[in-house]
Amino acid sequence: MLLAGQITLLREGAEGLSRQIYGQIRGLIEEGRLGVGVRLPTSRALAQDLNVGRNTVMGAYEQLVMEGFLVADGRRGTMVSEASRGFEGQTARVEDAVKAVRQVAQPRLSRQARHMIEVRRREHPAFHSFQPGLPELRSFPHDLWARHLRRAARHMQLHPDMGGYGHYSGVPDLQQAIIEHVRLARGVVAEPEQVLVLSSAQAALDLVCRLLLDAGDPAMMEEPGYSGALAAFRGAQADLRPLRLDDEAPFANLPQGFDPKLIYVTPSHQFPIGRLMGLEERLSLLRYAEAASSYILEDDYDSEFHFKGTPIASLQGLDRQERVIYMGTFSKSLMPALHVAYLIMPPKLVVPGAGLHRNMGSAPSVVLQYAIASFMQEGQFRTHIRQMCLLYQKRRAHLLAALARHCAGDLVPTSQDGGIQLLGYLSDALLSKGWDDQSLSHHLRNHGLENSPLSSFYWSGEMERRQGLFLGYAASSLEAIDQQVALMADLMAWR
Amino acid sequence: MLLAGQITLLREGAEGLSRQIYGQIRGLIEEGRLGVGVRLPTSRALAQDLNVGRNTVMGAYEQLVMEGFLVADGRRGTMVSEASRGFEGQTARVEDAVKAVRQVAQPRLSRQARHMIEVRRREHPAFHSFQPGLPELRSFPHDLWARHLRRAARHMQLHPDMGGYGHYSGVPDLQQAIIEHVRLARGVVAEPEQVLVLSSAQAALDLVCRLLLDAGDPAMMEEPGYSGALAAFRGAQADLRPLRLDDEAPFANLPQGFDPKLIYVTPSHQFPIGRLMGLEERLSLLRYAEAASSYILEDDYDSEFHFKGTPIASLQGLDRQERVIYMGTFSKSLMPALHVAYLIMPPKLVVPGAGLHRNMGSAPSVVLQYAIASFMQEGQFRTHIRQMCLLYQKRRAHLLAALARHCAGDLVPTSQDGGIQLLGYLSDALLSKGWDDQSLSHHLRNHGLENSPLSSFYWSGEMERRQGLFLGYAASSLEAIDQQVALMADLMAWR
Repeated sequence: MLLAGQITLLREGAEGLSRQIYGQIRGLIEEGRLGVGVRLPTSRALAQDLNVGRNTVMGAYEQLVMEGFLVADGRRGTMVSEASRGFEGQTARVEDAVKAVRQVAQPRLSRQARHMIEVRRREHPAFHSFQPGLPELRSFPHDLWARHLRRAARHMQLHPDMGGYGHYSGVPDLQQAIIEHVRLARGVVAEPEQVLVLSSAQAALDLVCRLLLDAGDPAMMEEPGYSGALAAFRGAQADLRPLRLDDEAPFANLPQGFDPKLIYVTPSHQFPIGRLMGLEERLSLLRYAEAASSYILEDDYDSEFHFKGTPIASLQGLDRQERVIYMGTFSKSLMPALHVAYLIMPPKLVVPGAGLHRNMGSAPSVVLQYAIASFMQEGQFRTHIRQMCLLYQKRRAHLLAALARHCAGDLVPTSQDGGIQLLGYLSDALLSKGWDDQSLSHHLRNHGLENSPLSSFYWSGEMERRQGLFLGYAASSLEAIDQQVALMADLMAWR
Repeated sequence: MLLAGQITLLREGAEGLSRQIYGQIRGLIEEGRLGVGVRLPTSRALAQDLNVGRNTVMGAYEQLVMEGFLVADGRRGTMVSEASRGFEGQTARVEDAVKAVRQVAQPRLSRQARHMIEVRRREHPAFHSFQPGLPELRSFPHDLWARHLRRAARHMQLHPDMGGYGHYSGVPDLQQAIIEHVRLARGVVAEPEQVLVLSSAQAALDLVCRLLLDAGDPAMMEEPGYSGALAAFRGAQADLRPLRLDDEAPFANLPQGFDPKLIYVTPSHQFPIGRLMGLEERLSLLRYAEAASSYILEDDYDSEFHFKGTPIASLQGLDRQERVIYMGTFSKSLMPALHVAYLIMPPKLVVPGAGLHRNMGSAPSVVLQYAIASFMQEGQFRTHIRQMCLLYQKRRAHLLAALARHCAGDLVPTSQDGGIQLLGYLSDALLSKGWDDQSLSHHLRNHGLENSPLSSFYWSGEMERRQGLFLGYAASSLEAIDQQVALMADLMAWR
């Protein structure tokens, strides 16, 4: 066998010649075309045959010896090793096995993974009409942002130590900027050390659930409620009960002796109903948490966008027992793809929370944290929020007017204020035509109108599912809103 | 009571006047100094007293009414609400309770959290002498990197859709660049769709453990082995057994019927021993995994830095059964604070892996993913690695020479090659002086010499702990290495 005849070298390729020789000889061994004990030509001979330098061939041989495919035996030269036999056999035997496995077996996933994945499967769509939760992106101050990124990169050049390990909880500048923001805007009472910076609200939900809950532990969340929170509770395999905030006395109706370790709420703008939790109810929730020794996770996901007056202050600011964990995100106030959110932990949970955060590894890049910090410190964050607030207010009013014009008999918008999405209930007229929110939502999505059906936010099976559509308006221009509502009206009239 | 006399306004403050009035009235109610039923001055009167516009006061009143602290009662004016009583009571009662709780109670953490946190508590130090795992940071091409960041920001300006949701697995450009890199450099066989981009190797370890393991499920990892992996297995509450790679036949000595669902290995450069897993052992591991229906997690953490020839190709590239999950990181090849790592999933785990990834929420920022992708596409990543390889090789040789000169009788360096850290075993002479690696490590750290003791990487309690020191040299200049080794020699001679 002339080995050189079985090797084809690309002189212009990205791969070095030595690497190519290595790869092709290895391939011949793997395929069984170079069997155990076969002696290879000397490196000098093969180099001549291939018209390459001798070092090139020697490099390939050395590599193959190091990996165990070849053995170098002094005077007897270089041979295909005994060890490579395992490989030949494997290849042959395994090919059939793989085929069989592929056809039959499903991977054995953990229960917790299956439960978590089940909650949210669908990828977000590429188009943006009425996509709930999506902020305006075309008006994002990209130039300014690019400047802050560059500045952050320069900062790291001047402080190379910041490129190493450490600061797992967050970069101090960003912790400080976040605290200043939530103190002023949300009445949160906390110190920068209490802040954990994470890669998303989802990571924050996951962290809090894992910090406090073992499998079977009692927990509560709102129903209807945010599916991301549901995924986190399911992942922790909690014994989860619904908190029905539309009840007159939500805390009186709970089963005796059910002391939830964690209670998830969105008091400033209930997701998805949009309801504001009043002072009395907040105090009753805090008292309940005290009696049951519960922690409360306050998800303040879109509180930046309230249109009338200042938004109601956070539950965290009312808490005197250090039972409230506050959670915020930059996904709505800056952009979702930024992937930065934060937790503000009560003092006693700071150290364990930071320890778990480090071991879960979802801290965002330090350069990014610096860029957000300087964006906030220079006041550009507040300016951006103020501008978006005005824009969203206009878009919301425009959407309401368009719905009144085109879909008045079909969708009944809630009176909730603020936020970046609108909930409309399906009217009796629409329901009597045979629509439910799932089929309607699907029908609209098929025609390019993104939305979420309200009924998908019910999870316990114990509550009657109200029928509604959840429409994001923040990313749609006034023109687009008109077009989309007109299209929606047409599509709803289809039945 | 003259309300105005109890309100002090800062005219130059960052907080608006209305907000200040709101906050101070709320404070008076919370402290019980404005009791239930107390009537407030009209907004006009208070505005005059405070010398502010009437709208300013009205804004504050409206906010307090909205939050439930005040009630507006038409002609009778504005009063402190009944609801605020709950608050007064709470404040008084709770203050004592909080004190009591702070002194006694520890927060009720989940078992999984406690197990995870326990594994790794210590923050990384601020100084860098011999810190294991730390790459050179001063030579990082910050200017180039800043340019790629700016370009990535511009790209997002041109494609505002990329700022939204989606691409949970990773930005396609980066998935592609990663595959090209690992194909060429590591012999990995995979398509871009198989890549999951995460915020850290730790997040990747956590994801894989949670994907495959429920509490009590059998699993295996190397001993001694990486503490980050241990934390992930502990978090999953796996029944974890040691894989002793120093055994003659590691897979023959395992208990019958113990079929691990997941096996964690570092075949290219065992952490912390530095051993290279030979071909025969790799094939035997693959056969074992097939028989036991195990998945293998191959952590290829520092394979970029091999000094002699090409590094041995990845285990993933040998796998014909789609049982190997490959894991890589940019922490060593670029910098730790970048917080980007990746998994390459076998085909059957791609969809469930991406689903779990979305629900764990540890995807890095999209702008960062673009920047890394263009850094790689332009070949600057390979150039940087090549330069660092030369630098680290020099530093390693220098460290070995310095150790031979100063500490020859005390530390016995392993013959492992490559990587960015060196393991030295404690000599019998040193042990007979009464040192063990924990006390020596502590002693050196107290004098500013960072390091890790080898014995801390044993975790099962079943193996004899070998004594050694783990020294990072990649971030130290040749001068610094000399100084640090001289200091180390002095400190070891102290006993």
